[in-house]
Amino acid sequence: MKLGVCYYPEHWPKSRWVEDAKHMQRIGIEFVRIGEFSWSKIEPTPGEFHWEWLAESLDILHAHGLKVILGTPTATPPKWLVDRHPSMLAKDEQGRVRHFGSRRHYTFASLEYREECRRIVTLMAQRYGQHPAVASWQTDNEYGCHNTILSYAEADLAAFRLWLAEKYGTVAALNKAWGNVFWSMDYRSFDEIELPNLTVTEANPSHRLDFQRCCSDQVVAFNKLQVDILREHSTGRDLVHNYMGFFTAFDHHKVGQDLDVASWDTYPLGFLDQEAIYTAEEKHQYMRVGHPDFGAFHHDLYRGCGKGRLWIMEQQPGPVNWAPHNPTPANGAVRLWTWEAFSHGAELVSYFRWRQAPFGQEQMHAGLLRPDAEEAEAAQEARQVAEEVKRLSASLGLDADELMSLPSAGKVALMFDYDACWSLDIQPQSRAYRYLFWCYRMYEALRELGLSVDIIPSNASLDTYELLVLPAQAHISPELHDRLGAYQGVLFAGPRTGSKTDSYQIPENLAPGPLASLLPLTVERVDALPEHTQPAVSGRWGAGNLKHWHEQIKTTLPCWLKDDGGNPVLMGEGRHYYLGSCIDTEVLKASLAKLAEMANLPTYYLPKGVRVRERGNVIFVFNYGVSPVFFAPENAALLMGDPMIKAAGVSIWKKN
Amino acid sequence: MKLGVCYYPEHWPKSRWVEDAKHMQRIGIEFVRIGEFSWSKIEPTPGEFHWEWLAESLDILHAHGLKVILGTPTATPPKWLVDRHPSMLAKDEQGRVRHFGSRRHYTFASLEYREECRRIVTLMAQRYGQHPAVASWQTDNEYGCHNTILSYAEADLAAFRLWLAEKYGTVAALNKAWGNVFWSMDYRSFDEIELPNLTVTEANPSHRLDFQRCCSDQVVAFNKLQVDILREHSTGRDLVHNYMGFFTAFDHHKVGQDLDVASWDTYPLGFLDQEAIYTAEEKHQYMRVGHPDFGAFHHDLYRGCGKGRLWIMEQQPGPVNWAPHNPTPANGAVRLWTWEAFSHGAELVSYFRWRQAPFGQEQMHAGLLRPDAEEAEAAQEARQVAEEVKRLSASLGLDADELMSLPSAGKVALMFDYDACWSLDIQPQSRAYRYLFWCYRMYEALRELGLSVDIIPSNASLDTYELLVLPAQAHISPELHDRLGAYQGVLFAGPRTGSKTDSYQIPENLAPGPLASLLPLTVERVDALPEHTQPAVSGRWGAGNLKHWHEQIKTTLPCWLKDDGGNPVLMGEGRHYYLGSCIDTEVLKASLAKLAEMANLPTYYLPKGVRVRERGNVIFVFNYGVSPVFFAPENAALLMGDPMIKAAGVSIWKKN
Amino acid sequence: MKLGVCYYPEHWPKSRWVEDAKHMQRIGIEFVRIGEFSWSKIEPTPGEFHWEWLAESLDILHAHGLKVILGTPTATPPKWLVDRHPSMLAKDEQGRVRHFGSRRHYTFASLEYREECRRIVTLMAQRYGQHPAVASWQTDNEYGCHNTILSYAEADLAAFRLWLAEKYGTVAALNKAWGNVFWSMDYRSFDEIELPNLTVTEANPSHRLDFQRCCSDQVVAFNKLQVDILREHSTGRDLVHNYMGFFTAFDHHKVGQDLDVASWDTYPLGFLDQEAIYTAEEKHQYMRVGHPDFGAFHHDLYRGCGKGRLWIMEQQPGPVNWAPHNPTPANGAVRLWTWEAFSHGAELVSYFRWRQAPFGQEQMHAGLLRPDAEEAEAAQEARQVAEEVKRLSASLGLDADELMSLPSAGKVALMFDYDACWSLDIQPQSRAYRYLFWCYRMYEALRELGLSVDIIPSNASLDTYELLVLPAQAHISPELHDRLGAYQGVLFAGPRTGSKTDSYQIPENLAPGPLASLLPLTVERVDALPEHTQPAVSGRWGAGNLKHWHEQIKTTLPCWLKDDGGNPVLMGEGRHYYLGSCIDTEVLKASLAKLAEMANLPTYYLPKGVRVRERGNVIFVFNYGVSPVFFAPENAALLMGDPMIKAAGVSIWKKN
Ligand SMILES: [Zn+2]
Ligand SMILES: [Zn+2]
Ligand SMILES: [Zn+2]
Repeated sequence: MKLGVCYYPEHWPKSRWVEDAKHMQRIGIEFVRIGEFSWSKIEPTPGEFHWEWLAESLDILHAHGLKVILGTPTATPPKWLVDRHPSMLAKDEQGRVRHFGSRRHYTFASLEYREECRRIVTLMAQRYGQHPAVASWQTDNEYGCHNTILSYAEADLAAFRLWLAEKYGTVAALNKAWGNVFWSMDYRSFDEIELPNLTVTEANPSHRLDFQRCCSDQVVAFNKLQVDILREHSTGRDLVHNYMGFFTAFDHHKVGQDLDVASWDTYPLGFLDQEAIYTAEEKHQYMRVGHPDFGAFHHDLYRGCGKGRLWIMEQQPGPVNWAPHNPTPANGAVRLWTWEAFSHGAELVSYFRWRQAPFGQEQMHAGLLRPDAEEAEAAQEARQVAEEVKRLSASLGLDADELMSLPSAGKVALMFDYDACWSLDIQPQSRAYRYLFWCYRMYEALRELGLSVDIIPSNASLDTYELLVLPAQAHISPELHDRLGAYQGVLFAGPRTGSKTDSYQIPENLAPGPLASLLPLTVERVDALPEHTQPAVSGRWGAGNLKHWHEQIKTTLPCWLKDDGGNPVLMGEGRHYYLGSCIDTEVLKASLAKLAEMANLPTYYLPKGVRVRERGNVIFVFNYGVSPVFFAPENAALLMGDPMIKAAGVSIWKKN
Repeated sequence: MKLGVCYYPEHWPKSRWVEDAKHMQRIGIEFVRIGEFSWSKIEPTPGEFHWEWLAESLDILHAHGLKVILGTPTATPPKWLVDRHPSMLAKDEQGRVRHFGSRRHYTFASLEYREECRRIVTLMAQRYGQHPAVASWQTDNEYGCHNTILSYAEADLAAFRLWLAEKYGTVAALNKAWGNVFWSMDYRSFDEIELPNLTVTEANPSHRLDFQRCCSDQVVAFNKLQVDILREHSTGRDLVHNYMGFFTAFDHHKVGQDLDVASWDTYPLGFLDQEAIYTAEEKHQYMRVGHPDFGAFHHDLYRGCGKGRLWIMEQQPGPVNWAPHNPTPANGAVRLWTWEAFSHGAELVSYFRWRQAPFGQEQMHAGLLRPDAEEAEAAQEARQVAEEVKRLSASLGLDADELMSLPSAGKVALMFDYDACWSLDIQPQSRAYRYLFWCYRMYEALRELGLSVDIIPSNASLDTYELLVLPAQAHISPELHDRLGAYQGVLFAGPRTGSKTDSYQIPENLAPGPLASLLPLTVERVDALPEHTQPAVSGRWGAGNLKHWHEQIKTTLPCWLKDDGGNPVLMGEGRHYYLGSCIDTEVLKASLAKLAEMANLPTYYLPKGVRVRERGNVIFVFNYGVSPVFFAPENAALLMGDPMIKAAGVSIWKKN
Repeated sequence: MKLGVCYYPEHWPKSRWVEDAKHMQRIGIEFVRIGEFSWSKIEPTPGEFHWEWLAESLDILHAHGLKVILGTPTATPPKWLVDRHPSMLAKDEQGRVRHFGSRRHYTFASLEYREECRRIVTLMAQRYGQHPAVASWQTDNEYGCHNTILSYAEADLAAFRLWLAEKYGTVAALNKAWGNVFWSMDYRSFDEIELPNLTVTEANPSHRLDFQRCCSDQVVAFNKLQVDILREHSTGRDLVHNYMGFFTAFDHHKVGQDLDVASWDTYPLGFLDQEAIYTAEEKHQYMRVGHPDFGAFHHDLYRGCGKGRLWIMEQQPGPVNWAPHNPTPANGAVRLWTWEAFSHGAELVSYFRWRQAPFGQEQMHAGLLRPDAEEAEAAQEARQVAEEVKRLSASLGLDADELMSLPSAGKVALMFDYDACWSLDIQPQSRAYRYLFWCYRMYEALRELGLSVDIIPSNASLDTYELLVLPAQAHISPELHDRLGAYQGVLFAGPRTGSKTDSYQIPENLAPGPLASLLPLTVERVDALPEHTQPAVSGRWGAGNLKHWHEQIKTTLPCWLKDDGGNPVLMGEGRHYYLGSCIDTEVLKASLAKLAEMANLPTYYLPKGVRVRERGNVIFVFNYGVSPVFFAPENAALLMGDPMIKAAGVSIWKKN
């Protein structure tokens, strides 16, 4: 449980650097991320290097006991480099080149650009890989930000054809897998295949899915190239990348396999304002503190991507500049977000950024310091957290390392799968259906019951979980099928599970495909509903409404929820249950409470806006509401805070 | 009154084909459409043909007594063909090439592609034109689907210049007709003229209208090319094309002139969900059965395009995949849609498709069979209709041919004109005005009065009609003017009638232009209203509101409806009446009832959701509502069903 | 106070011209604008000139005592000219060429096109510069119409690089000014700099701002080129350009410096319907007369651009064709608009257009005459105004020139700055914030208090004003700072004032930057609010709500309005006041009443829909409401009209 900050010494006169380092120390900051946008300062013109400023900056930070996360500068190649390799630029879905002038102006598939990355990362790793200040490396920055995963340039086409040839071997195999007989889309060679944009109407979904997979694999390869260099020249340092919220365009699990830690950039207010998942009421209610499950969901998701290790690389410290509207956080919100992250196992929470820049695109993005170097509100909240961590250590009788080692895993697992996300969103059937949103609402319901959840990839071990939720696992591979069959806890699968083969076809036995062995039922057809029609659902496990996606199911299983025509909605027996419709959070919560009960997991219905997270024997309680709320966990002793938790407040308890 | 199905033997193993044919027979299907997307199966590589599968398929169908509608495969040219003729690809209004990867990847104006079509259609017609199974040919598929009529490629520019030169002879004539003196748009030669896209602000409306006409004529020529080949090699077969719903981008009457039958593809739920014409209330109310006039309107429209002969080539059998939301139809809806089509004169209703494909873009589009070859709900409803047709034959004492010959024409004609549609939509003046929508609401009002309507082209004979409605006949040609003058029934013209010359200019005497000879009035100016302002209208013929379009009229004619300032809204005397505003359906219905009365046509106000259609001496009654309704036509005996018609139910009566 | 009309003799047969001139005379028209779209009639083919029609037309108008405003025809270059100089075409932000086919098909930066303009304007000025009919020249037409200021073509890039090199001297200076260290955006030479479109995410705001400034300067240079020619060959004539409503894409003050008079094109209904500033309630309420401050705001703004001289070049005379909806004006509205313009100092109100054209893009745009040459409603209202002006002259005992000379300046100044507009709109922080809209609402509040306002550029003399409002003067230059310091009236600055340096950076001392010397306060951070959250504001000066933009301010100044947390919203003492939030019109009005009181300016709360404007000793009263309203100014005698002013009515009073 340490604090960090993102720092851009190159933005400020050297005369400030020592004072900055001292000020960081005074607040209680231990980690500093630098360098990730500094290519033009390092190499202002081809082959002419200015390392001195970076060396001096590292030395100053080191001299003040600060550990550095050094960023490779590949998210912002300089203009001269782009001019040398114009083919490195991405093209958008409309076929337009995406030009220099901001950042992320490259396509992952560009082999020319990869060579430039190899060159600069090697030079940097050789030079600073063993620097005592350097504790970690961040590869690039926010892969995919500004919609940069899918690119439609020549380099992407070349990569795609190669990728397809490797995957399918023969074009006949591809034609069969994609079902190209439909609409005479058969190809005679891989060189006939084009990218799935600018087609007359939508391209074959198998074509689109494979393109998404290929683009995701380009990210994996791009990241791996840097990882290999850093491993060679900077042994012992944690390698990390900073992911983003509500972003699914590449397979984070695959990228995470090559790294040591997963981190992400947490902007609760910006995402509340901009994301379609939140209702107007939620946007208003949580305007200054963010939605209660936004941070938690991503912490649990990315901890899963980090093989158990999680950092927050960028924590919102005040108003940002990039959302449609950019309000100020509530008093205490920055502290609350920091504790929420720690409660989910974050080792580090690093604020973005140290000092607000008075220039450039993000000049209205707050930092811990204002542009005039005075402390902004968040600096005080960070200082408070640093002190509270010490008090918590003391009251638990643990040193900092022991505190960091408190186990963060839950007993409930929610399976999140990027391939499923792409598959199901390609053809939502009802416009508002989104895989990610449905997973989020599943997670929200679990969390409103006080459960601590792990969000796991489809290849994770299931052994430690009492309850396993598959929100919508589109394709059930033979390997997963075997593991699910062997699983001893309670299994709960949601609508669209098992509905596609690996090639994006409907399984021969219809959905739930291979899972029918565990869940004897057949999805006969799908009622994909407009928003204005949300039929009632009711039964022994709860009552409410369904929406978007409603399967017509034939089964002999006992039914626990039925629709307004008496048809099965939630069914199952023993350890296996299936939900055939998207249902609202209240009835979902009631049903999950039943399932948790079967799994011998205690649940409680939390007050609105209150959330709880357990880590080891510590219970963290958060109030995301705008009014004080009383909440005291059972059989626990107060360590910090008060049972009457104020708005944006936190209390910490120790289990008896 | 026969049933058919769309079938893709190339999607399935040959081992299924005999069973498929038998199963079709068992359901009562007599017609099978095949082949229209199979070019890559017929000619997988240039000049290498695989006819054998098609031959075998035809033989099997024939062996089971099934008649085939064979589709020319020109809607889906293979990739190798497109690569040989890249100039055949269309460009969208933004100037982007519309690439291979789905279907309809060609522009009608491409002479290179037309030659390829000539080649493949000739080969196919020579080979199968005399096959005993082949009863009919479908040219291409859904001309214009995915917005493919207007294309802005080089081939289109060449075609447009030629078309203009032929039409105008001299560029001076064109400059005068278009009024190019306005904004110095004069041209010195036809080669200076460009396509009307990507202009700084909107292009000259005359320019846009002529481009639309030219593109429409390209469709006519494209279709005619195939027709000529098929007539030569496959005499005696019905030639047909399958049109679409709410689609007006080419002149269907002109295309229809070259064919034997008009058919269309009927998807009541998809269109309800996606079309702007329907209110939120209608979208909710009719979610599972479609709007009560959707099928009827198009049946009557396309029967007019088919010179009296109508087929349904694709009838929705369950949820589709392409609308924003894709709900399941109500129980009975597929049967109701089928009977509605028969009641309007359809000879054939063919379901799309036989078996749901498990791959490709439409894998979520239902068929009569599910992907696992089990019957979906619609198969049972189709079987029921097949049996009911036999019972109806029997109870009427008619054989199948006599049943088919029951006259379907009405006594009311509504004139629908594609040129008027283009003209008026180019400059709507009030954003929500749409010619098609206004025609539809006119039709709805007539049909809510129980009237059976013919929708006729502007060159149709008027002799048999008692009441003639011109919803908005923008241009009144001298020839039409003469026919209207000679017309002996009641003539009712709506707003914008006679408001444009053939060159898209305002007539010298203002609207209604030449029609002022029959309707002595002058449209002095137009009040084009925002949606938030819908002034009251009232008078001896009804009361309600007007919207969108409101003409200020000077006339000495008696007025039957006036606006809230006492100005004329509906006026006329004797046999000629004029309506100067778009008015809501209730007051429109009341006024049409008055006009029908003058025309000696009995009307009755049908219960909400109920519709009636007469064919010969048979009366068909439909309930589009969600609750049972009692309705019994006067002086008629029940043949089928019940006077208390259940939701999505049908009753059939015989006139006494 | 004279009337004019826009006339297109080239659209009509010569046989009509004499009758047209006579008819104009009969109505009371004295000025006629002609020629601005006639290039293809003057020079139908390169070098072949047809001046005769123009000469004849000028002679006829002159013979009937009409004065001519002759338009240079450069807004509509002919097709042959565009074909000779394809590089003159603009490109839109998406990189697409904007083609011939309507008007304004050029980019201001094209040197090739400027040479063509020099050629045609010189020829025209030499030929007609001394013609006795020619009283004035209009340069081009509606600079920027159809979004034509920002263009992204090669000519624009060349101009931009040159402009930057001239401004910054060295690229290092540019890098520093733009803060290019952020995201490694440093350039090594001006030739590396590209246009700020099609970047991956938004370009540097300094980059965007400089591009806007450069494009604006291209307009200035383009206009100056014509001005220089006209000054040489047509001495003594007023040079004018016709600006547009709600248009800020170039610096009208700079263009205005080179001209003699400012004019603008007044379309109250079209703008009400299309502009986002107006609420749904306002759009409904003022549907047929326009928003009460639309004309006034622009009259005062453009009089400031015209160094005190104002014309209305195009006055809406009936329904137009280009808004989403195009309703008819209320009876009397054309007269009201004309008098409103005169009350703000307009010397001339010219109606667009004489006779409605039956062809081309604007065939549904009303004129004083209908297409059939009969008078439309507006002709009668224009005739009435002409007579009323004579009566007013008589009752005031002034001749026409004396009437024209009545002073139109107010005692309140509102500073409007195009550079501030671009700066603040580049980064609104809250989506709905718009500089122009905020200025308009400030103006509205002043005007609802009965105040007559001047809208002044930032370099205007402040001496004559008792109250000076800076709605949001983003950058305070040293020169302006000095003038504000010396200003002796009451100074009122709004949110975002002083928030940016000239290079688009945050000032070192934060906002209000240099103005902190007069207003000792610091804007510590900004709460940029979504529309759903409008916190309460209250205090000694009023109560209401704030929205969009809310500054957190540290100050020791007394506070007159506070937010719901007790934080400063409106503060100040003595002669200097600062408002830190956008507040609604009611509380803004109350506060402005307080400030006016301090400035010894009498105010009164006008009835809803009523507006007042003083000019010299004459008071004009307007009723924009839909019902009659009683209103009599104090200490004034009625000259025209009635204290009970009917809907769309006008009364005129003389101060005692
Ligand atoms: Zn970021
Ligand atoms: Zn279709
Ligand atoms: Zn204009």
